[in-house]
Amino acid sequence: MDVIKDYDWPGLLTNAGILLLKLLAIILIYLIVRSLGSKIIKHLFQKFEQQNNLSLGRAQTLQGLTLNVFAYILIFIFIVMVLDLFHYDPTALIAGAGVVGLAVGFGAQGLVSDIVTGFFILLEKQIDVGDYITAANFDGIVEQVGLRTTQIRSFDGTLNYVPNRGIINVSNHSRGTMQALVDISVPLEKNLDETIHILQSACDHAAAGLPQIKEGPNVIGVQELGASEVVIRIIAKTENMEQWRVERVLRKEMKDALDRYHASSAQ
Amino acid sequence: MDVIKDYDWPGLLTNAGILLLKLLAIILIYLIVRSLGSKIIKHLFQKFEQQNNLSLGRAQTLQGLTLNVFAYILIFIFIVMVLDLFHYDPTALIAGAGVVGLAVGFGAQGLVSDIVTGFFILLEKQIDVGDYITAANFDGIVEQVGLRTTQIRSFDGTLNYVPNRGIINVSNHSRGTMQALVDISVPLEKNLDETIHILQSACDHAAAGLPQIKEGPNVIGVQELGASEVVIRIIAKTENMEQWRVERVLRKEMKDALDRYHASSAQ
Amino acid sequence: MDVIKDYDWPGLLTNAGILLLKLLAIILIYLIVRSLGSKIIKHLFQKFEQQNNLSLGRAQTLQGLTLNVFAYILIFIFIVMVLDLFHYDPTALIAGAGVVGLAVGFGAQGLVSDIVTGFFILLEKQIDVGDYITAANFDGIVEQVGLRTTQIRSFDGTLNYVPNRGIINVSNHSRGTMQALVDISVPLEKNLDETIHILQSACDHAAAGLPQIKEGPNVIGVQELGASEVVIRIIAKTENMEQWRVERVLRKEMKDALDRYHASSAQ
Amino acid sequence: MDVIKDYDWPGLLTNAGILLLKLLAIILIYLIVRSLGSKIIKHLFQKFEQQNNLSLGRAQTLQGLTLNVFAYILIFIFIVMVLDLFHYDPTALIAGAGVVGLAVGFGAQGLVSDIVTGFFILLEKQIDVGDYITAANFDGIVEQVGLRTTQIRSFDGTLNYVPNRGIINVSNHSRGTMQALVDISVPLEKNLDETIHILQSACDHAAAGLPQIKEGPNVIGVQELGASEVVIRIIAKTENMEQWRVERVLRKEMKDALDRYHASSAQ
Amino acid sequence: MDVIKDYDWPGLLTNAGILLLKLLAIILIYLIVRSLGSKIIKHLFQKFEQQNNLSLGRAQTLQGLTLNVFAYILIFIFIVMVLDLFHYDPTALIAGAGVVGLAVGFGAQGLVSDIVTGFFILLEKQIDVGDYITAANFDGIVEQVGLRTTQIRSFDGTLNYVPNRGIINVSNHSRGTMQALVDISVPLEKNLDETIHILQSACDHAAAGLPQIKEGPNVIGVQELGASEVVIRIIAKTENMEQWRVERVLRKEMKDALDRYHASSAQ
Amino acid sequence: MDVIKDYDWPGLLTNAGILLLKLLAIILIYLIVRSLGSKIIKHLFQKFEQQNNLSLGRAQTLQGLTLNVFAYILIFIFIVMVLDLFHYDPTALIAGAGVVGLAVGFGAQGLVSDIVTGFFILLEKQIDVGDYITAANFDGIVEQVGLRTTQIRSFDGTLNYVPNRGIINVSNHSRGTMQALVDISVPLEKNLDETIHILQSACDHAAAGLPQIKEGPNVIGVQELGASEVVIRIIAKTENMEQWRVERVLRKEMKDALDRYHASSAQ
Amino acid sequence: MDVIKDYDWPGLLTNAGILLLKLLAIILIYLIVRSLGSKIIKHLFQKFEQQNNLSLGRAQTLQGLTLNVFAYILIFIFIVMVLDLFHYDPTALIAGAGVVGLAVGFGAQGLVSDIVTGFFILLEKQIDVGDYITAANFDGIVEQVGLRTTQIRSFDGTLNYVPNRGIINVSNHSRGTMQALVDISVPLEKNLDETIHILQSACDHAAAGLPQIKEGPNVIGVQELGASEVVIRIIAKTENMEQWRVERVLRKEMKDALDRYHASSAQ
Repeated sequence: MDVIKDYDWPGLLTNAGILLLKLLAIILIYLIVRSLGSKIIKHLFQKFEQQNNLSLGRAQTLQGLTLNVFAYILIFIFIVMVLDLFHYDPTALIAGAGVVGLAVGFGAQGLVSDIVTGFFILLEKQIDVGDYITAANFDGIVEQVGLRTTQIRSFDGTLNYVPNRGIINVSNHSRGTMQALVDISVPLEKNLDETIHILQSACDHAAAGLPQIKEGPNVIGVQELGASEVVIRIIAKTENMEQWRVERVLRKEMKDALDRYHASSAQ
Repeated sequence: MDVIKDYDWPGLLTNAGILLLKLLAIILIYLIVRSLGSKIIKHLFQKFEQQNNLSLGRAQTLQGLTLNVFAYILIFIFIVMVLDLFHYDPTALIAGAGVVGLAVGFGAQGLVSDIVTGFFILLEKQIDVGDYITAANFDGIVEQVGLRTTQIRSFDGTLNYVPNRGIINVSNHSRGTMQALVDISVPLEKNLDETIHILQSACDHAAAGLPQIKEGPNVIGVQELGASEVVIRIIAKTENMEQWRVERVLRKEMKDALDRYHASSAQ
Repeated sequence: MDVIKDYDWPGLLTNAGILLLKLLAIILIYLIVRSLGSKIIKHLFQKFEQQNNLSLGRAQTLQGLTLNVFAYILIFIFIVMVLDLFHYDPTALIAGAGVVGLAVGFGAQGLVSDIVTGFFILLEKQIDVGDYITAANFDGIVEQVGLRTTQIRSFDGTLNYVPNRGIINVSNHSRGTMQALVDISVPLEKNLDETIHILQSACDHAAAGLPQIKEGPNVIGVQELGASEVVIRIIAKTENMEQWRVERVLRKEMKDALDRYHASSAQ
Repeated sequence: MDVIKDYDWPGLLTNAGILLLKLLAIILIYLIVRSLGSKIIKHLFQKFEQQNNLSLGRAQTLQGLTLNVFAYILIFIFIVMVLDLFHYDPTALIAGAGVVGLAVGFGAQGLVSDIVTGFFILLEKQIDVGDYITAANFDGIVEQVGLRTTQIRSFDGTLNYVPNRGIINVSNHSRGTMQALVDISVPLEKNLDETIHILQSACDHAAAGLPQIKEGPNVIGVQELGASEVVIRIIAKTENMEQWRVERVLRKEMKDALDRYHASSAQ
Repeated sequence: MDVIKDYDWPGLLTNAGILLLKLLAIILIYLIVRSLGSKIIKHLFQKFEQQNNLSLGRAQTLQGLTLNVFAYILIFIFIVMVLDLFHYDPTALIAGAGVVGLAVGFGAQGLVSDIVTGFFILLEKQIDVGDYITAANFDGIVEQVGLRTTQIRSFDGTLNYVPNRGIINVSNHSRGTMQALVDISVPLEKNLDETIHILQSACDHAAAGLPQIKEGPNVIGVQELGASEVVIRIIAKTENMEQWRVERVLRKEMKDALDRYHASSAQ
Repeated sequence: MDVIKDYDWPGLLTNAGILLLKLLAIILIYLIVRSLGSKIIKHLFQKFEQQNNLSLGRAQTLQGLTLNVFAYILIFIFIVMVLDLFHYDPTALIAGAGVVGLAVGFGAQGLVSDIVTGFFILLEKQIDVGDYITAANFDGIVEQVGLRTTQIRSFDGTLNYVPNRGIINVSNHSRGTMQALVDISVPLEKNLDETIHILQSACDHAAAGLPQIKEGPNVIGVQELGASEVVIRIIAKTENMEQWRVERVLRKEMKDALDRYHASSAQ
Repeated sequence: MDVIKDYDWPGLLTNAGILLLKLLAIILIYLIVRSLGSKIIKHLFQKFEQQNNLSLGRAQTLQGLTLNVFAYILIFIFIVMVLDLFHYDPTALIAGAGVVGLAVGFGAQGLVSDIVTGFFILLEKQIDVGDYITAANFDGIVEQVGLRTTQIRSFDGTLNYVPNRGIINVSNHSRGTMQALVDISVPLEKNLDETIHILQSACDHAAAGLPQIKEGPNVIGVQELGASEVVIRIIAKTENMEQWRVERVLRKEMKDALDRYHASSAQ
């Protein structure tokens, strides 16, 4: 009933001092182990990489992941030790039922979802560090694949942290040759056969100067018949990540060719 | 209370060494069995395929699936063995209740959903490797159908990994003849009967040169009566995957025919 | 502790051989029963159909469904037999509780939802094979109504597999006469009474040549009064699936009538 | 272990024959009771309707519902009887726990939701057969209100089956007088007072010829002041379902009046 | 095993007759009590309203609610009595566990949600009958606030039934003075100071004739600086529900003032 | 079995009379305590506010909240008393399990969510009465922060009731200086250096007359390079809630300055 | 039965007085401890920051978090003490089962989700105070990272409170060099080679005056080939947060260069 008197204030303070010392010791050990462990893992991976012929992306993925798992296990041990310090049984905490348990169970399902998804992303090798992917509405280069989070670097320099549960569908743009696609609008009154011939010549000319092109480029035909213009589509197969450059060169070549043709036909 | 002293540090280290050796042995065996198993399965399927008259798509689907199931069972056995190494009873883990169990149960339901859906996609033969499908907002050619994930290759070269639970509705564009559809805008002041006659002639001419067309093409009539133009629709039945080429050829033929007609009527 | 030695490798292999033989036998029986059963069901339905006056759509729906249910029951028996082969009690599996059970229960609720919904779609005769429906954002002709999946063929030839739980609302366009609706834009400066009179005459003329029209077509009035044009609406009742053709013919007739009228009034 | 021998094949077949006969008998009885019951219910409702002064919509709603409930109870009894035939205790099925129970419980909650919602739609008389409603994104005339499904006939002739749980908000357009609303655009340079006077005269003239109008129509003022035009709004109260016709007539009258005014002012 | 013989058909029929009579008696009593009760409640409220100075809206809200609660309690007693008639213990039904219980519990949570939300809407006096509100995407006048459903009458005459759980956010437009807001576009070449002066004079003139305006109207400045026009904003505080009328009058006054000004400056 | 006779009708009526009297007494006491309590709380807060230097917004927030909590506790006591009157144990009700309990538990979770969120909004002082915030898609001035509902007054006068669970993200526009941002379009043919110089001069002039500006305004450069115009951006820091006025003045000043410049350069 | 008499009113009042005193004492102690604690924490962090070389953002993040955790623990102790005052066992409250427990468990899961997510945001160092991030649709500078809420200051001055569970994906724009991107539209009739040459010269000139540019700017080619214009893209790498300034300067330089070129070519 008399709440304030009931507490043994001096005893509490003494205990608090001892606890504080222990806590500091644990924190110190935690920090040392973490920095040492990280260095050892990185060193081992460097050696391993030199002796084996892993692709760089795959090696970085594995190293990042190992560091990641190491950090999570360490922090887990750290939390259990601190709880133990306060005479609180961690097993009871984890297996605790009732309202708090229910809330924790529901609240933590996101974490489990992250780990399950992360595990399968790694097992199925869906992404490697350095891949250009689209996932969870982000578009960019993978910087790190962790058990809980994946880091994607956008082309504008932004670093996006995506929890793995958000990565439902992965579109990996670094798994094979890519297609360059250019649509050219031509006024409706132009002769189609001539225009297509000119565009195809320009394509062949461009292909000669672009070793990144693996197939084509080819004028595949009339894609759209608008009210005042005809849209002609050109496609090519290119090396990975070279599709935009090829598209830009093709656009310039097409424009130059049409300019020359219009100039000559206007005379 | 004195947490740090309580641990038997040297004993832990010795045990850790032995455990490490066992762990390495298990990893080695796992790697050997996995690479051997994959080769045997591929070899058996090649023989099987030669002796039977399965469609190529179906055979690839089955081979991919078998490899997939094999890999998942192996990794499952591997995890159970490692857990066993650490004296942790896997049965207890799986049937464990409480907060962690709840979280795991909820977090893993996505995995079960994937497998149940994957099972029915395969049982009902909704997709085969090589089919052109639309599913989960991806559009492309199926590369692999797994128990958990399906791989769809977009036409621009991107490889999309889709967990099966995301494949609710499947639109399979490789199950029968396709329809080519072309809409032509004609200025409002043109005579409709003449225009339709000209377009139908061009259709018949195009059909003669396109063996991919199975039926039509036919001018089916006025689709839209706009403020300044009339939209006339033409449809045809084509061989699978040939609909775009047919549409492109039809668009070009229509434009040429209208150009000739306008030229003659302008004289 | 010594995990690898504990396994009785030779015994396992011998057992594996016997199991493999049994497994093959079960698979063989399964395949035979399945192909035989399907043929018998199809044969019985053909006879049944000839002797009774069922609509074709309804008969196909029932046959497809019977084959479907037959296949699911067979595969269920097959799985139970295989599990039994591996000394695994299927009852325990089905009634199993714990984490796996929870995950399975949640993961499988989609399946139960499919079957419950499918059952009511069939009981309430919402769709028959051959109906033109809109469901789950797909638009097309029903090819098969199964207990778990419904197949809808789009007009462009795509075959859509829709799990029944996705079919919440069904819009069945094959249950009664349809309405053809045509909106005609007329320039604001035209006299409205004359224009409506001309359009109504054209409607009557079109109706004479189109036996598919069951009622109308009638000019029902000014639908919209825009800044530079007046929109006049015409509706008609037509036979099922003939609404588009009627609309197209009406559009052409309207345009021809207005052309003639403008030509005469311009003189 | 020897699975195949364990089954008593001949005994199974004999039992199967007897079961088949019983099954056929039950199906026969079910079909007879269903057709008889439906006829009796319809007959009773016809008599009841003649002797009482129920609105036609309400009477049809009640008859449809009674037939609906009768069919569901019959099919439920039928399923219980068939299950009983196979020595399967239906009570256990219904109260069954475990994984299957969980899945069924979750999968069937949609069904319970349908019935609960349907019950309240009927109790609160939210819709009657023949009402023009908007619900679940469908717009049309109610054809049937069932305990599980409501049928809405769109104006284009499509019949929409909507499970009651989908009918969250009901917009009933058949509960009172409706408002006709017409917006007229006038060029910015016209005198506003004169224009409003002319439109109000046209409104009064139109009201004289339209007994469906219950109040108004009145020009309520300048609704929008655009860059090049002024929008003037006219509203009227009309009989139910007559609002569109009134709007069309008003639009035509307004246009004619403005034409006459512009013609006279242009002289 | 012999299902059909097991039923005591004549006994069942006799019992059915007695049950039917009892059922009819209960239905009769139910109907009488319902109609009587409704009349008494309405009568009491009329008296109560005359003797107290409740606002009309609040009085109607309370009467509608009382009738509503009365009807639900009555139907609940009716269902319990009918179930009792069939020897079915309603307590068991309500507290019943198992699959059906689970499904019912989930299916009925919408109902509980409705009542909880309805209770707080009433307790916090968020809406009264006659208020103009926006809730659940409906916009209109409240006709009835029930424990489960709220009825909103749209301005076009439609009656919307909204279950209370759908009313998450309530925007009540009948709680205080409203703001009239008019944006006027002026050509970019006009002098701004003069234009603002003219608009403010027109505002002051309009305010003199509109007693519904409580504050303003004031020209607050340049809201937007477009490519070819300047948008000037005018705001005023008005009596509730009078904001549209004030806006319409202000728009007309602004246009007239600008017309006069342009006419004079063009001379 | 004989349901109707079983009820002791006269005894029920007598009890009902006594109950009614008690009920009326409780209602009376409830109403008196509520009105008295509210007055006392308001009085105490007025005194408290005078003696302390709380900001007005914070004081109003605390007073509104205290009244709110007081009303909820009172209504809770009232309900418990009424239930007690009917011999119904409220503890059992609250802790009741089974189907009803499940439904209530799920249905009421919204209420708990409201209170938990409301508690943290208050604890973290996210909003005070009088703040201008954006939350749950509403934009306006906070009128009251309750434990369950927050009231936001839109600028057009509407009062919005938002349950706290709907307030996930709070954008508080009353916590610091605001930024005024003006974009000016200049025709592409103008000289950029001169235009920027003129705009900056106009900015400096405007700043002299506007003490609400705390920093700037500054022309920060070319924001957009369109096809026919250049967009130049100007920003300034202003006092809270003064940003719109500053923007309006800046827009007018910019336009005047450009007008003068164009006039002089056109000479 | 006689509810009102049963309460011991005077005793209740006496107890209430004692309770009130204790309550006030607890509140006083709570307020003192909170203000003292905050000061001590801030002081310790200032010292710590001076002695170590932490980045300012990281130091502020840690200090804000420590204050945050301190406040939550204090309020938790405060609530437990108050509950204890009222003889209510807090353990029972927290572990309470039944309906209330279920509702609380579900309602509070948002809180647990916030803390779990917040913990990982901090552990993985996804954001520091002062970073420019995009999260939960808010765009701005991080002001505070708490265990439950993160505060983001928008550029217009608004302070956004975001519960951590809402921060699923974090886009951190302060982790590395950023890319400036400018698109220039050139009329279709211009010579492309010359234009690109002029733009590149202007880029080189701009780079000389902007030390914030780390790489480029470079004209990378034709991005789009429109109907009447060609879009040319220029990109550069810049220091963090300097990308907008660089883009603005580049836009101005490009325009000036094109003006000079057009002027010279027009002569």
